[in-house]
Amino acid sequence: MFQRPRGTRDFGPEIMPIRRWAENAMRKEALKRGFREIQMPTFEELDLFTTKSGPGIIDELYAFKDKGGRNIALRPEMTAQAMRFYISDLSTLPKPLKLFYFGPCFRYEKPQSGRFREFFQIGAEIIGARTPETDAEIISLAVKMMESIGLKNFNVRIGHIGVMKDIMRNIGLPEERIAEGLHYLDKLNDERFSKFAKDNSIPEDAIEQMRLLRELKGGAEIIKQLSDQETGDYLRKLSEILPLLGINDFELDMGIVRGLDYYGGMVFEIDAPLLGAEKQICGGGSYDLIALLGGEEVYTSGFAIGFDRTLIALEKEGVPARDTSLDAFVIPVDGDTREKAIEIAGNLRKRDISVDFDLMQRNLSKNLKYASAVSARYAIIIGRKDLSKGIVTVRDMKTGNQKEISIDALLDFFC
Amino acid sequence: MFQRPRGTRDFGPEIMPIRRWAENAMRKEALKRGFREIQMPTFEELDLFTTKSGPGIIDELYAFKDKGGRNIALRPEMTAQAMRFYISDLSTLPKPLKLFYFGPCFRYEKPQSGRFREFFQIGAEIIGARTPETDAEIISLAVKMMESIGLKNFNVRIGHIGVMKDIMRNIGLPEERIAEGLHYLDKLNDERFSKFAKDNSIPEDAIEQMRLLRELKGGAEIIKQLSDQETGDYLRKLSEILPLLGINDFELDMGIVRGLDYYGGMVFEIDAPLLGAEKQICGGGSYDLIALLGGEEVYTSGFAIGFDRTLIALEKEGVPARDTSLDAFVIPVDGDTREKAIEIAGNLRKRDISVDFDLMQRNLSKNLKYASAVSARYAIIIGRKDLSKGIVTVRDMKTGNQKEISIDALLDFFC
Repeated sequence: MFQRPRGTRDFGPEIMPIRRWAENAMRKEALKRGFREIQMPTFEELDLFTTKSGPGIIDELYAFKDKGGRNIALRPEMTAQAMRFYISDLSTLPKPLKLFYFGPCFRYEKPQSGRFREFFQIGAEIIGARTPETDAEIISLAVKMMESIGLKNFNVRIGHIGVMKDIMRNIGLPEERIAEGLHYLDKLNDERFSKFAKDNSIPEDAIEQMRLLRELKGGAEIIKQLSDQETGDYLRKLSEILPLLGINDFELDMGIVRGLDYYGGMVFEIDAPLLGAEKQICGGGSYDLIALLGGEEVYTSGFAIGFDRTLIALEKEGVPARDTSLDAFVIPVDGDTREKAIEIAGNLRKRDISVDFDLMQRNLSKNLKYASAVSARYAIIIGRKDLSKGIVTVRDMKTGNQKEISIDALLDFFC
Repeated sequence: MFQRPRGTRDFGPEIMPIRRWAENAMRKEALKRGFREIQMPTFEELDLFTTKSGPGIIDELYAFKDKGGRNIALRPEMTAQAMRFYISDLSTLPKPLKLFYFGPCFRYEKPQSGRFREFFQIGAEIIGARTPETDAEIISLAVKMMESIGLKNFNVRIGHIGVMKDIMRNIGLPEERIAEGLHYLDKLNDERFSKFAKDNSIPEDAIEQMRLLRELKGGAEIIKQLSDQETGDYLRKLSEILPLLGINDFELDMGIVRGLDYYGGMVFEIDAPLLGAEKQICGGGSYDLIALLGGEEVYTSGFAIGFDRTLIALEKEGVPARDTSLDAFVIPVDGDTREKAIEIAGNLRKRDISVDFDLMQRNLSKNLKYASAVSARYAIIIGRKDLSKGIVTVRDMKTGNQKEISIDALLDFFC
């Protein structure tokens, strides 16, 4: 028997309606805000991803040579692709350019709870603006996408990478080391950060400054503690705009260091605490990625939502049930009513009523059992005698109540 | 500058709304008929595809070893996956089991018009029934999917592989050669078929019989020319059922030989003649694939639609334009009306009105130009004086007509 590849998933008929519903709910939020959908290939030149994320990412990539000898890789994320697409084809569109995308991404990593080798992301970008309005717009889209599927337990944390970078610049650290330093500022890497600080002769008071900054979180009142006034003003403005867009629950958190050195300004993360250790369901910020990939420098704010984890978080809260029932299942009782049964099914479908009918030439009791199994709301039972009088029997599959209806009135019954 | 991989495509903001609309229109047709959506991984064990399609397919596959040394391949189609999923997880669901799926597939082939290395398919299966009703249902779904997007120029041809197989069995050809023979019966392979016939000592009259059968096409009147009465009865019944489901335009064509030996009964194809040489947009039939993949034998009818080619055919007919315009673009004229502008945008969005607003702190004339470029239907212009009176100016972006509206009445204006 063939096995599904390790770390991947099949999605069955129970879960797919929920996934499509969630995808469409999120898509609608983006469209409603003037974001426009794009789609890029499932694989790309390997170099695109290593240029964006560093050579270290190769270990986590599904990378291979195609038959033409090219190094290609299944995409681990879609931002680099969106930027590549922007540079080659979209750069003349009016700015700000608001884009979003949805699709599968791939990482070769140890399969574990909430981490899959094939997973789905939904991402968005605003290209061509760096204003508090832009960052508020991108954060609010991410939050509204979460709200659109009814997710309740999530925390929005907003920071700014500029303050931390400024401290490092002020002590004369060269740009190429700053990213490394940011990477180690993560609390989990405290030991490596100490080593990094020692190796780079970072003075004690700067280290202390960074550690304090890392712990700084709360409401707008923390802004006055920032040494960098420009960033402070920016965050204050952002904090004022977000409520105007309906976003009231967020925390400022100067400890967010997204680790990749193309992040330049605002950074934000959304966590779903019910998920435990793997709780981050969205990450984003403001960055200069296009220049890195060979285009003209242009400000961009964007995010990526982990679609699968978000749905797992929603499941833990209890997903509202989707109604996937059929309106009707048509059952011919006698062989010579089969044609009429099919015709009735065909006619009801023309009016967008969801209808199935007996494909197996089964008897009434088996057909009723099947109709119940596929969640038909009504069975339309067609017997020879009734048919000669122009009527059929409609059975409510929940209550078992039956009534006779003339064929001409069937449409009205269902519409 | 990074290049998109050869033979793949990016889909921009103009085309994506059309693709999503078409995908959803087709999905709706499936759901309306009781088909349920499933989704399988983008890659699988290589063996799954070679078992289904023969080792020859390797040349066309994106096949590679993953970091664990497993032979995997990007899927060239989704039927084998659907059957693999059925065998492992879905076999206990009530029969007939009606499934459909949509997604990207991959073939390493020379890029040319209508052939891409990443392309999209939509497919469906009915598992567990072999009746004329089942085949009629699967054909009608394919046709209704075409009709759902407004495609007009397409031809439906229905055949039956059984007659041809019977002729070959009757002359004592072993099963393993029959598939080969069917493959060569394609008119383009006439020379190879002659060689095949000679190598297998196929008598002249059988060759003549097969060649005549290959040319046999037309309405139900051709059925009486079939030597195999059971197949004749089946096709007659199928031809009677299809019109009951709203399918009146089809041709019987005994020359359809789909070449893969798991096809056992009805076969059908849909062509879009406007596409020229690469005109086939759908292929399907009735087959016994599950046993081949290690499950219990169970009848299946299914098809795959080439989503990209179908859309190209539609474009050649002229796609009806999709309305992707924004309802409104909100423009603050003075710095101190910015907050009110954002608040108004936020409030309108809450009511599902699609609204964008100035992110760039631009002046009125630049904002109007941008509003026009992103196809906003109205501009909502917010000046300081007006605001103090509780009113805003709404400008019709097409006519240039403006009128003043009280802020309280804005919702009513757009709802």
